[in-house]
Amino acid sequence: MSLIVQKFGGSSVADTERLFNVADIVTSTYAAGNDVVVVVSAQGDTTDDLIEKAKEINPNPSKREMDVLLANGEQISISLLAMAIEKLGYPVISLTGWQAGIHTGMNYGAARIKKIETERLKLEISKRRIIIVAGFQGINKFEDITTLGRGGSDTTAVALAAALGADLCQIYTDVDGVYTADPRKIPTARKLDEITYDEMLELASLGAQVLHNRSVEMGKRFNVDMEVISSFTRNPGTKIKEAHKVEKMNVSGVARDMDIAQISLVNMADAPGIAYKVFSTLANKGVNVDIILQSTGRNDAKDIAFTVPSASLELAKKVLEDNKENIGFESISVREDLCKLSIVGAGMVNNPGVAAMMFEALSAANVNIDMISTSEIKVSVLIKKEESERAMRAVHDKFF
Amino acid sequence: MSLIVQKFGGSSVADTERLFNVADIVTSTYAAGNDVVVVVSAQGDTTDDLIEKAKEINPNPSKREMDVLLANGEQISISLLAMAIEKLGYPVISLTGWQAGIHTGMNYGAARIKKIETERLKLEISKRRIIIVAGFQGINKFEDITTLGRGGSDTTAVALAAALGADLCQIYTDVDGVYTADPRKIPTARKLDEITYDEMLELASLGAQVLHNRSVEMGKRFNVDMEVISSFTRNPGTKIKEAHKVEKMNVSGVARDMDIAQISLVNMADAPGIAYKVFSTLANKGVNVDIILQSTGRNDAKDIAFTVPSASLELAKKVLEDNKENIGFESISVREDLCKLSIVGAGMVNNPGVAAMMFEALSAANVNIDMISTSEIKVSVLIKKEESERAMRAVHDKFF
Repeated sequence: MSLIVQKFGGSSVADTERLFNVADIVTSTYAAGNDVVVVVSAQGDTTDDLIEKAKEINPNPSKREMDVLLANGEQISISLLAMAIEKLGYPVISLTGWQAGIHTGMNYGAARIKKIETERLKLEISKRRIIIVAGFQGINKFEDITTLGRGGSDTTAVALAAALGADLCQIYTDVDGVYTADPRKIPTARKLDEITYDEMLELASLGAQVLHNRSVEMGKRFNVDMEVISSFTRNPGTKIKEAHKVEKMNVSGVARDMDIAQISLVNMADAPGIAYKVFSTLANKGVNVDIILQSTGRNDAKDIAFTVPSASLELAKKVLEDNKENIGFESISVREDLCKLSIVGAGMVNNPGVAAMMFEALSAANVNIDMISTSEIKVSVLIKKEESERAMRAVHDKFF
Repeated sequence: MSLIVQKFGGSSVADTERLFNVADIVTSTYAAGNDVVVVVSAQGDTTDDLIEKAKEINPNPSKREMDVLLANGEQISISLLAMAIEKLGYPVISLTGWQAGIHTGMNYGAARIKKIETERLKLEISKRRIIIVAGFQGINKFEDITTLGRGGSDTTAVALAAALGADLCQIYTDVDGVYTADPRKIPTARKLDEITYDEMLELASLGAQVLHNRSVEMGKRFNVDMEVISSFTRNPGTKIKEAHKVEKMNVSGVARDMDIAQISLVNMADAPGIAYKVFSTLANKGVNVDIILQSTGRNDAKDIAFTVPSASLELAKKVLEDNKENIGFESISVREDLCKLSIVGAGMVNNPGVAAMMFEALSAANVNIDMISTSEIKVSVLIKKEESERAMRAVHDKFF
């Protein structure tokens, strides 16, 4: 008998039919002899509807009251799913975030889970009840309701699995696992049976929108075996595990991120600490910087180029212009026609030829590389957006 | 400076415009120097919508899960009202039932308030914050969410006023007070400035649908000064107080209850304890019996006639038929063409002529009386529904 945590997102519980599909998955798992703790998000558009309602009254409400409002979305889901499971004749109980003992920090709207008091959860498990927990929410030290922000329900599920020592944390989604590439773009993409936390983290941040990074980071920290699995097909999904439990592949996936922009600072004074000035200034304003390339320009001056998420481009430009004199550069140039193509694989570190294979594939496909960045388990290149589909196919065919 | 509890029902907070009307009343009270604790119900049809959603999934859900679901209605209201008050620039905080320390018994769907832990409430009052509390809900000893059933938000308001020692508990509704008769039926009806708890209880149970009896009973028990007042007109309402604080009127109101049925048990054996048998049998099945008339029929047998709420008629008939032999009667006859007309007044007890005045008025209006029942502060008669409008007008004109 295992203890299994199962998480279902908003689209999986959007209407009565889907709620019963979820109830069926949950009760099948339970009937097989497992203890089951379920985490659910708000139904379909509920959260957006509540936000709209609030904005009509106050375009700038306090985050505390917004959290009181939004927490209803999940509290509605848990009771409805519990009712569906009751209908199927199984013992079940729903718990809100605070009832499930989920304590968070003070940051309304984006709170972090601090600890989970498992007393109530363990009591209900000992009664062999299926437990339905509201994702995305908790309480802070004032007993005020908080929400966890983006990816919150995934995080709730992994945190509960860690706190309860669960054998597996299944994240049900509308895709049936993690693929070697986006299957909508690359028809030959194939599903991975398993992948390491680090590979998953790289793939997630590279635009494979399956799991939120926060939940994978937590899974890695607490050694929670995870599985990304479809609530529609009922096929096995992709397991996410510690590196030593996974049979390492040289390359486990190819990912593309279209939402980036490249910023170049032209003719910077060639003084020590100049890179520090640029990137600490941006970091202080919350701009995440990715691939960085530093080169020598004319007259011994330097150019520095780097990428930022498209959504941060305007902010980054403003921050740099405001600090132009302090940093010391001649002009800013921006390119929005580039995207990032990456290969990820935990086996890469022992296989120096992998990067070369990627460049070879790109060269053969006549794709020009603008910038290159490598880490132990990843090689990323900046290429033109218009060439990226061809490039992705070429790289994928090379490795798989 | 006073502490005032203000309660607003679902229609008072149904949309953005009305929420701001409520916010205006609340902040005006606060700005005048008072501490204000506000209790709100779910917006408009929210509760019905949630019930419908549940029934679609499970026509017979557990009461516990139903309470988890329904509590969202009030939790949505409190946050939206808090946001409206924030918009007006006042300090405000919303609290759910459990955050406000409202502890109830175990009876899901119709729980009774057991105690209120006022620590959090007093802390927020000391910070001069307007507090918005979710009506209709609390938690039981397992920390599970409960709802209070019909009239729940009124009860929450009075219970909070009692626990906090509030100076006044204002119940805002869509009528502007308690009238000597239903003003839609009797144009000459006039608003009462004040009334005793007992008078209010009689009027409420007699069909003057202003306040739920539970809240008035609680007000009486804990000596909470109450006021029924309109959230639309901004006129003074009707104060409900202890008898010694109220200038006693002979008759303070005329009320009519159309939703009753009369049941007669014909030819009962004239044995001791027969009335006990009838009414304990009905009480055991939850049938409330009102006016009772016992008379001697043919052959020394008795007839017993009594009234029940129309909604309980079928149940009452079934219970009586099932126990026909045990109780011992020949047949049941039912009349649904009767209604109950009552006059209520705390001064009546010292004024034996009041009942006679009522009968005189009815006689002059040519209204036939079927049954009569009197108490210290009330005289009720059963009359034909079709004659009741005329009768009500005649009685009202006699006294006012």
